[in-house]
Amino acid sequence: MILRKMFIIPSFEIHGGVKGLFDLGPPACALKAAMVDAWRKHFVLTESMLEMECTCLTPEVVLKTSGHVDRFTDLMVKDPVSGECFRADKLLEDAIDELIEANPDMPVEEREEHMRIQIQADAFSPAELDEQLTKYGCKAPSGEPYGASFPFNLMFKTSIGPEGTSVGYLRPETAQGLFVNFRRLLDANSQKMPFAAAQIGLGFRNEIAPRSGLLRVREFCMAEIEHFVNPNDKSHPNFASVAGKELVLFGRDDQLGSGKTKTVTVGDAVSSGLVNNETLAYFMARTQLFMERIGMDPERLRFRQHLTTEMAHYACDCWDLEIQSSYGWVECVGHADRACYDLDVHGKATKTPMVATLKLDEAMEVEMAKLKFDRKALGKTFKADQRVVSGALEALAENWADFEPIATALETEGKTTVDGFEITKDMVTWKKTTKKVHEIKFTPSVIEPSFGMGRILYSLLEHSFYQRDADEQRCVMRFKPAVAPQKCAVLPISSGDEVNAVVDEIAAELMDSDLATRVDKSTASLGRRYSRADEVGVPFAVTVDFDTLTDGSVTLRERDSTIQIRLPKADVTRVVFDFVHNRLTWEEAVKKYPTVSVKED
Amino acid sequence: MILRKMFIIPSFEIHGGVKGLFDLGPPACALKAAMVDAWRKHFVLTESMLEMECTCLTPEVVLKTSGHVDRFTDLMVKDPVSGECFRADKLLEDAIDELIEANPDMPVEEREEHMRIQIQADAFSPAELDEQLTKYGCKAPSGEPYGASFPFNLMFKTSIGPEGTSVGYLRPETAQGLFVNFRRLLDANSQKMPFAAAQIGLGFRNEIAPRSGLLRVREFCMAEIEHFVNPNDKSHPNFASVAGKELVLFGRDDQLGSGKTKTVTVGDAVSSGLVNNETLAYFMARTQLFMERIGMDPERLRFRQHLTTEMAHYACDCWDLEIQSSYGWVECVGHADRACYDLDVHGKATKTPMVATLKLDEAMEVEMAKLKFDRKALGKTFKADQRVVSGALEALAENWADFEPIATALETEGKTTVDGFEITKDMVTWKKTTKKVHEIKFTPSVIEPSFGMGRILYSLLEHSFYQRDADEQRCVMRFKPAVAPQKCAVLPISSGDEVNAVVDEIAAELMDSDLATRVDKSTASLGRRYSRADEVGVPFAVTVDFDTLTDGSVTLRERDSTIQIRLPKADVTRVVFDFVHNRLTWEEAVKKYPTVSVKED
Repeated sequence: MILRKMFIIPSFEIHGGVKGLFDLGPPACALKAAMVDAWRKHFVLTESMLEMECTCLTPEVVLKTSGHVDRFTDLMVKDPVSGECFRADKLLEDAIDELIEANPDMPVEEREEHMRIQIQADAFSPAELDEQLTKYGCKAPSGEPYGASFPFNLMFKTSIGPEGTSVGYLRPETAQGLFVNFRRLLDANSQKMPFAAAQIGLGFRNEIAPRSGLLRVREFCMAEIEHFVNPNDKSHPNFASVAGKELVLFGRDDQLGSGKTKTVTVGDAVSSGLVNNETLAYFMARTQLFMERIGMDPERLRFRQHLTTEMAHYACDCWDLEIQSSYGWVECVGHADRACYDLDVHGKATKTPMVATLKLDEAMEVEMAKLKFDRKALGKTFKADQRVVSGALEALAENWADFEPIATALETEGKTTVDGFEITKDMVTWKKTTKKVHEIKFTPSVIEPSFGMGRILYSLLEHSFYQRDADEQRCVMRFKPAVAPQKCAVLPISSGDEVNAVVDEIAAELMDSDLATRVDKSTASLGRRYSRADEVGVPFAVTVDFDTLTDGSVTLRERDSTIQIRLPKADVTRVVFDFVHNRLTWEEAVKKYPTVSVKED
Repeated sequence: MILRKMFIIPSFEIHGGVKGLFDLGPPACALKAAMVDAWRKHFVLTESMLEMECTCLTPEVVLKTSGHVDRFTDLMVKDPVSGECFRADKLLEDAIDELIEANPDMPVEEREEHMRIQIQADAFSPAELDEQLTKYGCKAPSGEPYGASFPFNLMFKTSIGPEGTSVGYLRPETAQGLFVNFRRLLDANSQKMPFAAAQIGLGFRNEIAPRSGLLRVREFCMAEIEHFVNPNDKSHPNFASVAGKELVLFGRDDQLGSGKTKTVTVGDAVSSGLVNNETLAYFMARTQLFMERIGMDPERLRFRQHLTTEMAHYACDCWDLEIQSSYGWVECVGHADRACYDLDVHGKATKTPMVATLKLDEAMEVEMAKLKFDRKALGKTFKADQRVVSGALEALAENWADFEPIATALETEGKTTVDGFEITKDMVTWKKTTKKVHEIKFTPSVIEPSFGMGRILYSLLEHSFYQRDADEQRCVMRFKPAVAPQKCAVLPISSGDEVNAVVDEIAAELMDSDLATRVDKSTASLGRRYSRADEVGVPFAVTVDFDTLTDGSVTLRERDSTIQIRLPKADVTRVVFDFVHNRLTWEEAVKKYPTVSVKED
């Protein structure tokens, strides 16, 4: 049905298509617009986030700085005969799945050992992965063993400008555009911390072998939030509002141990240390609420914590919201505490201070080091760089905790390295002291919820689909009124001009209140037209009949119950508006207006 | 102010930036979302268009077929010393501008001759352009003459997949994604013609030397409509609704002649033949209405017709909506009748019939040719291809008008070429005859309005900006309520808890009705906070004061008049909602509620 109703279609189908590229057809396009709108309201507007739109084209220097040019890779192996490329970790995962499936009587312990290896597949080094592939007897389609695995960069490369000398990439995530704008964003927020920036836009990954249909694609819509926070205070002002919310959590200990999830409140998850901090947990709860709001089945949602080996070296804690669909449990939203890594690297590369200021209510004593340089020794060794070296040391000396390791190294080893320069004992002496400060400057930590909108859209299609009375012919999408691509259908019972005029009038009034409306004046039976509306998830249908012309009343049908009520046509817009905005439930409407019984075929 | 309020910012600024790439900051991002929303309502929803979202990454075969790989170029010249690249037509345009400026006393006729050359700058062949550059004495920055001009392809090239063998491009327009989906779209529209598909998304052009700040950029948001229509009947069912609308038209005769525009009604423009057909004119009128709806200054809008030399070889007629800003008159929306070129080329390349069917009310006699092949002669010459050749001839023979040129050529020359095959007289004989048909199959023509949303956004910023009482400190954006990024500000007069609670309550109620709201609880003076809201174009501001706590009334201020009215806080949401949805004017509100006079500083 997804193809037939033109929800999702392989791109460039008539030209043979391209793996990993899909188009959204009219109903999916409208559903996506409604989802994006709901996301913007739930996150950006409710919390006054600063939304930006940055470019997809990104110059190499930015992604070199962020580490993507060197490290945004998957391990790839080739069939030595055909040259065909495969993603090495997926081959290992598949091999383990097959092994377990082929041996149903395998002892539990042995199976768990295999699964532990499987769960770490994407964290192995090339050598480790090669070893595992050999151990599990993975063979290329040609029958030969695969060649050695090697990292393949997943970014699409291009050249910006006519000279052909300036390398650019399509961004693999929207986040970098926000990081490089940090100083302007902080200004726009009147220097107040914490605050969040957000971006909805395209990301691109040149997947090695896109499979899993709509889930692993090469071009996708992301919605990302970068919440900037003081690294020493990751509390969240609205934490209390979500502390009682229950989440299904799959911590790393449980993944490597029991294999079972835990259902705990957000408050307990933080106080027990399972989730690293309030802000991270706050966004996990907000994500859960968003998913429920757009109509995802809560029974098929869980948060999985990254294993230590899976996380980027700088990250403190990561939790993926996984959604269960016919593809299994799939990561749809990442929640990562990226610490101050990103601001730090861009700040250093551009010599731009990426810092926020915390004003103190009363002055505070801080321990620091007072330095005295031997300028002659510095100059002799570093020449033109001597100011850079002394500047770097001065910056560290601002805070004794930062300087202490330097001091210790110089005392015990006689030398140490700062920003790539080797410092020796003769260059600097110091005195531990204190000073009064009225404000503290710090590089903010970043907590990042990152939504894969395409994956969420696809999962929502699966969670919304059902067949009425198990009749294959009568497919229904149970989209919630708030996200349904079209809110209301308006149908004439006959093709008479008078009836049609009322249909147009009601449709215009609905559209005028921003309620997307579907008019179906085709000659198909009413039952057939209801079915068509059901298939694209229209929650309500108004039918104009001959009685409407005399008493001004119309029938309003609700999609899932198929119950119909009779109400004045003048009430239609307000009632549908209130349904869509969660101000009126169908049950309340049924109590207020008389129900009518009409057979649907 | 555009930078200071973070409307638009050069991308990757801290890393030195990239020419032709810009980010949208929070207020522009919200304005763009509101513009896109208005566009979707004005075009897609009102006319039940089929909206899609196709990918930016496009395989080479698609753009080879569409002609972009071979012809999507600008002429480029290089400085022979530095190797720096320039766009040749822009150099000529600039040279003519300079010449005219430097010679204010130039006779009118001479000046007009120069301007006629200028207007054709982007239509010259490389040799013609080289000649003109020499004639106008254009020199490279190094002082040397430029090298010969040559075509530079403006598409960004990349490689899709890990093997590195599959070339892809970033799409230069969204249209191709819709064309290749034509058959599915026609199905989704139950085979009914005419119909329109639409797409909002990114386009990319590797501009040679991006200038004109925000107008000539390398990555931009487009909104395109492809209206598919019977080439023999380009009438539009809703044409009557716009026939009386006046447009400012700058026809090609006037461009090469009087240099003056004409103001004519849409109906007259079509009946006089100035605009080629009803559908093209209908969309021009709808574009004009859209521009007025989002608040563009109608005095600074005009439609300019393409010169014959400027149009693609297949196009019937093209009109650009140009918007005047500080950059002069800039093309912001193209309206092109692309005939059946696109469907034709994709149909031929993929051997997919891209046709629609017109069912006739009564059977019709059509003239055709009945063919008789000499299979032996065909087989000898074409071998395995003989069926392809006879099939192509049979298809042409369906309609005498199509076959007549073939017949004439064979009779007079003894041979002709069909689809690249040389046919000789001995291979086929024919008889002109008639047959009864109940339906006609045809390749639809495409009429395409194509909106450059970034350019429109920038123009709207210029048209909306003014300074209150000519005071440079008091900048205002006069965004219409329907597209204003934020609809209402809510301000407490003091920081007391009780007042703040009412502010939060009103803001929540506004947001709940989808009215984006700005809460400003800062300690700045009320006048200062009004000014801040004015700068980002918030049309209304509600102020909660101490009286609110006793009588429940609040002040509502309108941005442009700065008039304030007093109304019950319970009325606020409905009143603002009605302003935004054009159901209530400010004048009506002022009659209904008492005005209050408060000094603003």
